[in-house]
Amino acid sequence: SVPQKLGEALSSQYGLNVFVAGLLLLLAWAVHASGVGKSGLLCFLTALMLLQLLWVLWFVGRSAAHRRLIRLKDTHAGARWLRGSITLFAILTVVLGCLKIGYFVGFSECLSATEGVFPVTHTVHTLVQVYFLWGHAKDIIQSFKTLERFGVIHSVFTNLLLWANSVLNESKHQLNEHKERLITLGFGNITIVLDDHTPPCNCSAPTLCSAVSHGIYLLYPFNIEYQILASTMLYVLWKNIGRQVDGHQHRKIQFRWHGVTVGSALGLTVLAATIGVVVVYLIQIGRSKTKSESALIMFYLYATALLMLMGAAGLVGIRIHRLDEPPLDESKNPARKLDSDLLVGTASGSWLLSWGSILAILCAKARPVYTWYNLPYSVLVIIEKYIQNLFIIESVHREPEKLSEDIRTLRVVTVCSGSDPSLASSSLRSGAVAGDVAPQVIQMPPAVNGNLCSREASGKGEAEPGGGGAPGPACRPRFLQGNAKRSILRNIAAFLFLCNISLWIPPAFGCRPEYDNGLEEIVFGFEPWIIVVNLAMPFSIFYRMHAAASLFEGYCKL
Amino acid sequence: SVPQKLGEALSSQYGLNVFVAGLLLLLAWAVHASGVGKSGLLCFLTALMLLQLLWVLWFVGRSAAHRRLIRLKDTHAGARWLRGSITLFAILTVVLGCLKIGYFVGFSECLSATEGVFPVTHTVHTLVQVYFLWGHAKDIIQSFKTLERFGVIHSVFTNLLLWANSVLNESKHQLNEHKERLITLGFGNITIVLDDHTPPCNCSAPTLCSAVSHGIYLLYPFNIEYQILASTMLYVLWKNIGRQVDGHQHRKIQFRWHGVTVGSALGLTVLAATIGVVVVYLIQIGRSKTKSESALIMFYLYATALLMLMGAAGLVGIRIHRLDEPPLDESKNPARKLDSDLLVGTASGSWLLSWGSILAILCAKARPVYTWYNLPYSVLVIIEKYIQNLFIIESVHREPEKLSEDIRTLRVVTVCSGSDPSLASSSLRSGAVAGDVAPQVIQMPPAVNGNLCSREASGKGEAEPGGGGAPGPACRPRFLQGNAKRSILRNIAAFLFLCNISLWIPPAFGCRPEYDNGLEEIVFGFEPWIIVVNLAMPFSIFYRMHAAASLFEGYCKL
Repeated sequence: SVPQKLGEALSSQYGLNVFVAGLLLLLAWAVHASGVGKSGLLCFLTALMLLQLLWVLWFVGRSAAHRRLIRLKDTHAGARWLRGSITLFAILTVVLGCLKIGYFVGFSECLSATEGVFPVTHTVHTLVQVYFLWGHAKDIIQSFKTLERFGVIHSVFTNLLLWANSVLNESKHQLNEHKERLITLGFGNITIVLDDHTPPCNCSAPTLCSAVSHGIYLLYPFNIEYQILASTMLYVLWKNIGRQVDGHQHRKIQFRWHGVTVGSALGLTVLAATIGVVVVYLIQIGRSKTKSESALIMFYLYATALLMLMGAAGLVGIRIHRLDEPPLDESKNPARKLDSDLLVGTASGSWLLSWGSILAILCAKARPVYTWYNLPYSVLVIIEKYIQNLFIIESVHREPEKLSEDIRTLRVVTVCSGSDPSLASSSLRSGAVAGDVAPQVIQMPPAVNGNLCSREASGKGEAEPGGGGAPGPACRPRFLQGNAKRSILRNIAAFLFLCNISLWIPPAFGCRPEYDNGLEEIVFGFEPWIIVVNLAMPFSIFYRMHAAASLFEGYCKL
Repeated sequence: SVPQKLGEALSSQYGLNVFVAGLLLLLAWAVHASGVGKSGLLCFLTALMLLQLLWVLWFVGRSAAHRRLIRLKDTHAGARWLRGSITLFAILTVVLGCLKIGYFVGFSECLSATEGVFPVTHTVHTLVQVYFLWGHAKDIIQSFKTLERFGVIHSVFTNLLLWANSVLNESKHQLNEHKERLITLGFGNITIVLDDHTPPCNCSAPTLCSAVSHGIYLLYPFNIEYQILASTMLYVLWKNIGRQVDGHQHRKIQFRWHGVTVGSALGLTVLAATIGVVVVYLIQIGRSKTKSESALIMFYLYATALLMLMGAAGLVGIRIHRLDEPPLDESKNPARKLDSDLLVGTASGSWLLSWGSILAILCAKARPVYTWYNLPYSVLVIIEKYIQNLFIIESVHREPEKLSEDIRTLRVVTVCSGSDPSLASSSLRSGAVAGDVAPQVIQMPPAVNGNLCSREASGKGEAEPGGGGAPGPACRPRFLQGNAKRSILRNIAAFLFLCNISLWIPPAFGCRPEYDNGLEEIVFGFEPWIIVVNLAMPFSIFYRMHAAASLFEGYCKL
């Protein structure tokens, strides 16, 4: 077999070529190249998906046949909540597939057969892939490495191409909506051609078709997230092939929902408010010039306030993290490295847009009042992502504390129960129950805390079951302080998590001031700015979902 | 101080923002955005360079003040030949700067002052930066890390922006030439506007100005290589800040010019032939339709033959490498990791162009005869880079053999000289001389080789100075075989090195069949294809120079 480095190069080059060829087909479709149509692109994507399905079936079959072999697992990869969220997105993708099939049936007169075959294949592909990821996302493959590498990298880039395809569809839709608004507002001077708007024939059931096509564009954002999430999970699987694992296996991360009432209450308020703002924005924008402007001002003011809150929360979080300066966990971990790189990389997409807005405001010749609100908003987008990335990187690089509360409780119980083995094992069982109750320690009065702490301390030294009394002078404040810190950090993480989910909604569902603002289009020109927005926006949208996922992971480690 | 990971995130985010802002200024200039001109861009770049100069002066001053401190060095980074080649490119960049100053003086009536300030600052910046890289490219900085990180990443992105600026200038020039050819050939249907062609006033000394402006475009390719090379070296310096170095310090790599006559003779022939082909191409193209077509056919035939040779050589090299399957050196090494990533990453640029050509040929409606030659050429470009990357990655990941010939000779001498310390030290001195003669071992008759080999073997066990005799059965063939292998590999590396230098020349100096072929422009449309070429071509050009550098490094390790 070939060495790790060579195997990676062999397969990654294959994958990149598939990706590049697919991107060119997408480009050809986007620019209406002569001779290459949508059906060519869909054929290519369908072929890629079928190839991946073949490989997955082979792999699953072989794994089932060798079930008795001990297989290594990367405990960092494919966390349960990650697989849970991918399942959720996959379900919505399957619904999207069904809607697309319905749309094809409605317009079957003038659509080519590929537009029917594609959603069917895609649905099967989604179901099989989610099954595969549930079973194998954590695997560290050590056999038949070359074939596995090719299969996994093929899957990575197939998903990336499906992502790019969805993004392109979504962008075309958004651009069409933008152009329709421009027509309403009376900008006749731009040559407006709607692109792939509706098929050139009548639907057999018009109301159904219109509902379906609305539904499709509501579901696209979830499909987009699904594809990119799947490709990141597959990429981690690929990086793990043939890896040497050190003995260090980290503790399972647990999600505990307690003591974050303030953070989650604030976050949920923000979520509700954002949905309200988006709905108002989408109703108002493009109706008339004044209504559009007031919608823009409302959005900018709301987003500015929210970003300031988020930035402040992030700063407090970093400050608290930096107070005790524990060494960060720098062990090798492909999943975490990818996460950090993606955070900074995808943030660049939105930085590009923000710098574009700033440049446009500074260089524009005429500046209507509402465009000034854009300046603080753009600056804050940059600063907030800068701060938030630092906070997330610090959180996810933290070693989960060795002695968390439930283990402490368990130990106290064990120490109390003495040396009787049967009692100890029963207390272990009660420890499992205690684990659920344990977070209440945070709200316990100081005396109890102190008591627990001193027992813990005595448990560390010699087992003196009756040795409880006045706690040591240094013991209580540090313990309390640690708990208070952790509680604040958790609240911040929960708040930022919900805020990021909130901020994912506006661009994903068509609230894009970068289009509606108009100033950038005047300075850079319509075409160049549209290209920039269409290239950068998908990364900017993905950033929010990815930041939310990383914050969740950081939260679980606190 | 902040932990490694956090410091990297802090500074890289700053750098990315500078980069993104600069890219937008470049875009604004490229699309003639209203309100942002060339002078705004040049002001920004000048400010960045001045900031970098300030930081470099501070850093050099501080290093000089703490000269007595022991400083760690990364022996992999900033090899001598790398610093040598950057110096060469820097000299040409300084010449370019002088020409630009001359150009400014000639057209001073209608050029803004920034166009004079920029080349002056750039020249100073180049000189200081080369001095800095000679002294500090290998440093592993362990103090004042935050400030150093910001300074180094600022330098990285300043150089990248200067690279992007040069690339844009060069692209505009090439596009203008292409448009002029189209005018000559009578394609009046495309709206042809020459972009930033000549300043809107007359030169005070017309012949001088014309010569200078020709000279500028001949020197641009070297400037482009200089900027990207400088930014990769600075990036490695940045990655090394605060790094924990393991004790493992590798042996100094030596360049030996021997036994590669076949490879270098073939390579030099290719170099001469390529220059000839490029000159003929540039004379013929755009003269008339038939002359253009014959020039294209000549280029495609030549390049196809050359790429087949290179691919075959690469395949033989990989086969020989794979014969003995030694474990690869997988130790942590930022310089090497960057090199491999850049190879695969920049190859993607040329893969994009090749897939574009393939797609265009397959989908075009009318295919003139000469376009068919494009198909094997494009396919071979993909395959050759695939193979070559594998060969390079295998070569640079090889551990240099622990016992090379000169050390062997030295040991034989030492073993023969017995235990007398003064004699041993004198033989050590003679060993230094023997090191120069050592490569002749390759040409020694088998008997001498066998003798040496057996002594070597006995030297390994116990010191038996008189124990030489008939060599062991397995010893001689393996030793010989190893030498023959190494000789072939070196010839291949030397040949590929010169071929890559050769293939760097055509696109860098304006021989771009992707423009002149015309087929892609018809299929994708003029604008989209020009954008794709301008985005992908810089990476494709850089690939050749970078592959040559990596092959040189691999050659030294053989």
